[in-house]
Amino acid sequence: MASRRAVLGVSAAALAGAAGAVAAVARGGDPAPAQPPATVPFHGRHQAGIATPKQRYAVFVAFDLVTRDVAVLRNLMRDWTEVADRVTRGQRPLPRGNAPAGAAVDSGDGDGLAPARLTMTFGFGPGVFDARFGLAARRPPALRDLPAFAGDELDPAYTGGDLVAQVCADDPQLASYAARQLRSRVMGIARLRWVQRGFQGYPADGGTPRNLFGQKDGTANPAPGTPEFADTVWVPDGADPAWMAGGTFLVLRRIRMSLATWDLTPLAEQDAILGRHRDTGAPLSGGSEFTAPDLDRTGPGGAPVIAADSHVRLARPFKMFRRGFNYDDGPQGDEPHAHPAGTEPHDHANHRHDYDAGLLLAVYVRDPGAQFVPAQEALARADRLTTFTTHVGSGVWAVPPGAEPGGYVGQALLG
Amino acid sequence: MASRRAVLGVSAAALAGAAGAVAAVARGGDPAPAQPPATVPFHGRHQAGIATPKQRYAVFVAFDLVTRDVAVLRNLMRDWTEVADRVTRGQRPLPRGNAPAGAAVDSGDGDGLAPARLTMTFGFGPGVFDARFGLAARRPPALRDLPAFAGDELDPAYTGGDLVAQVCADDPQLASYAARQLRSRVMGIARLRWVQRGFQGYPADGGTPRNLFGQKDGTANPAPGTPEFADTVWVPDGADPAWMAGGTFLVLRRIRMSLATWDLTPLAEQDAILGRHRDTGAPLSGGSEFTAPDLDRTGPGGAPVIAADSHVRLARPFKMFRRGFNYDDGPQGDEPHAHPAGTEPHDHANHRHDYDAGLLLAVYVRDPGAQFVPAQEALARADRLTTFTTHVGSGVWAVPPGAEPGGYVGQALLG
Repeated sequence: MASRRAVLGVSAAALAGAAGAVAAVARGGDPAPAQPPATVPFHGRHQAGIATPKQRYAVFVAFDLVTRDVAVLRNLMRDWTEVADRVTRGQRPLPRGNAPAGAAVDSGDGDGLAPARLTMTFGFGPGVFDARFGLAARRPPALRDLPAFAGDELDPAYTGGDLVAQVCADDPQLASYAARQLRSRVMGIARLRWVQRGFQGYPADGGTPRNLFGQKDGTANPAPGTPEFADTVWVPDGADPAWMAGGTFLVLRRIRMSLATWDLTPLAEQDAILGRHRDTGAPLSGGSEFTAPDLDRTGPGGAPVIAADSHVRLARPFKMFRRGFNYDDGPQGDEPHAHPAGTEPHDHANHRHDYDAGLLLAVYVRDPGAQFVPAQEALARADRLTTFTTHVGSGVWAVPPGAEPGGYVGQALLG
Repeated sequence: MASRRAVLGVSAAALAGAAGAVAAVARGGDPAPAQPPATVPFHGRHQAGIATPKQRYAVFVAFDLVTRDVAVLRNLMRDWTEVADRVTRGQRPLPRGNAPAGAAVDSGDGDGLAPARLTMTFGFGPGVFDARFGLAARRPPALRDLPAFAGDELDPAYTGGDLVAQVCADDPQLASYAARQLRSRVMGIARLRWVQRGFQGYPADGGTPRNLFGQKDGTANPAPGTPEFADTVWVPDGADPAWMAGGTFLVLRRIRMSLATWDLTPLAEQDAILGRHRDTGAPLSGGSEFTAPDLDRTGPGGAPVIAADSHVRLARPFKMFRRGFNYDDGPQGDEPHAHPAGTEPHDHANHRHDYDAGLLLAVYVRDPGAQFVPAQEALARADRLTTFTTHVGSGVWAVPPGAEPGGYVGQALLG
């Protein structure tokens, strides 16, 4: 019962897969995923799931704390750390402290599944630093609620949360199982706020994966392991507060895409709106996918080839690391419900049969206010692409550094 | 532009994968999936996606017809057949007849993805045979709306539909892409009714996959290719109506599982409720997973070892082929909405924060009324497992035989 699988550890195949992932990173863009089974080490200077090559499947889960006791929060982070350490290695978690007599250690739906590059990444929202836990003085200055952006239509069902867990794997059942083990530890401590699920398909040739607008997404990403990546993502030693050194910040935006409208837009228009050729990912100014866009190049008549309101031009000044996942949740909205006779006519702001698909844009940066906020302000103001998108969910979390064996995620904050 | 990938066709790896899948079938239970890339042939006596080893990911999509013209329905089935034939081979669909000038042939998010064992399977609901299309006389007698079962809490958002498409693949992005190409063909013809998405994780040892109660699911399934499978699933030659020969019927039930309650139930109770050991899948009467349950065996005190109200005992008399997928959609329910001042108090039957996870139970049988209905009646009446489940969606469709090259799915009905 202690082990989810008979054979654990990093296999030769996993090592080969990891080597392949590194090779793919070196080619630029997002790497193709390694073949499962592969184990991503949980411990380290940084939390896994950030520089880790994107897996095929992601579950983001947010919780609101109901406890007001920092010791309870500390125990929860210890507990989650133990769960993540064991489950990412293919082991069962240890028994829950509050389990009823005779209950199984876990739900069993993860039995026998290979680790599938599972990662579990934890973050603290602004609420952790409010009056409840005595941590206000240790709040990172960079952790602030995001401002309202033009066009935002945020739904509380996809916004905010005191705690977030990003659970990624190449096996959707393993991701579901792992998220469930986290939920099983919060009874009386925190309340589930929302769950969002995304996926990423990988071209067979190892090329940059695409979003639901058909665009290669992540071309401009810094490559994990490079100085540019570190400078973009990781909070450096000596930063304020010290407990965030080696950490980062997660901004998660749920960006609904108007797929039907987009699909009716001529391809040449789609390309002009992005500033790149959809098929190849090459900038309209020429070259191939990884050629730098030539923003000064003009076409017949003197107009810039990459338009002033194109996504590429507006987004280019801002450095961030995108680790997004597509989502396709189908028609959404109110469930049918009856009103007693005599109820007055009223507006449900009913979005039923809105088709909810798009991008769970997970952005990792060392300073959201300096990197994400000005980028999103520029895009919300002028990017033509935004006429096909609506931001319907949002959140920001401080993602503490990784845990070493014997420690836990958040230890430098919570002691 | 005509090809989604540079290299198509069945590779050596795909053939090896198919051989592996056959080997796994011979061991009983649901087979482990072949490694992608692999192409599942679309054409054949039967539609693909039924006897096909279950893929990792499924999207079920239902539509209601708005056309009343059988010729339009015929053209849609021709169009869908062409889409499925091409996309399952890694090719782009042909241009849409109603596409605006300059529009891309497809949405591009499938570019470069390997076929990932994609299958697309189509079915006709009872509505196809109502007064609209002149097909009432050709309605299969076995295609009837299911009766209401005890405990049903069916939500229209997951129930019914004139047409259904089951889209399965090992790559969730490819499944999303393929379903989108079907949607792109229905404008003015049909309206999207619902989308349901499921997944299946596969134990690394090739064992039977598990549902979200941690149980091996599919142990009693007949093995595809055997006479028992054919007798359970395929409508035989000479049946009434003749156009269904080689077809089958799909019953899809969305079974919400009370995961939190289940997880608090002692393991011994879970086993008693199922009639099997969760860990091994062996019946409580002894042996291993594929040992036939000994329903006559009694324990101390003379009580049957496999209880009278256990799932195994109640389900055993009924022959069906289960091709279910787990789902884990998170908290569900009404979106927040405001009422104008003066609105009277009223009940929204608000299920917000109900956690919606469970099983998309796809059952393939040659006669739902003789195979599925009595089974579900017996289970709904007495199975203790049903105290942990709620059926919240339902549908039944006639699944016509497969198409041969040059033909289309439903041709024997629609001419």
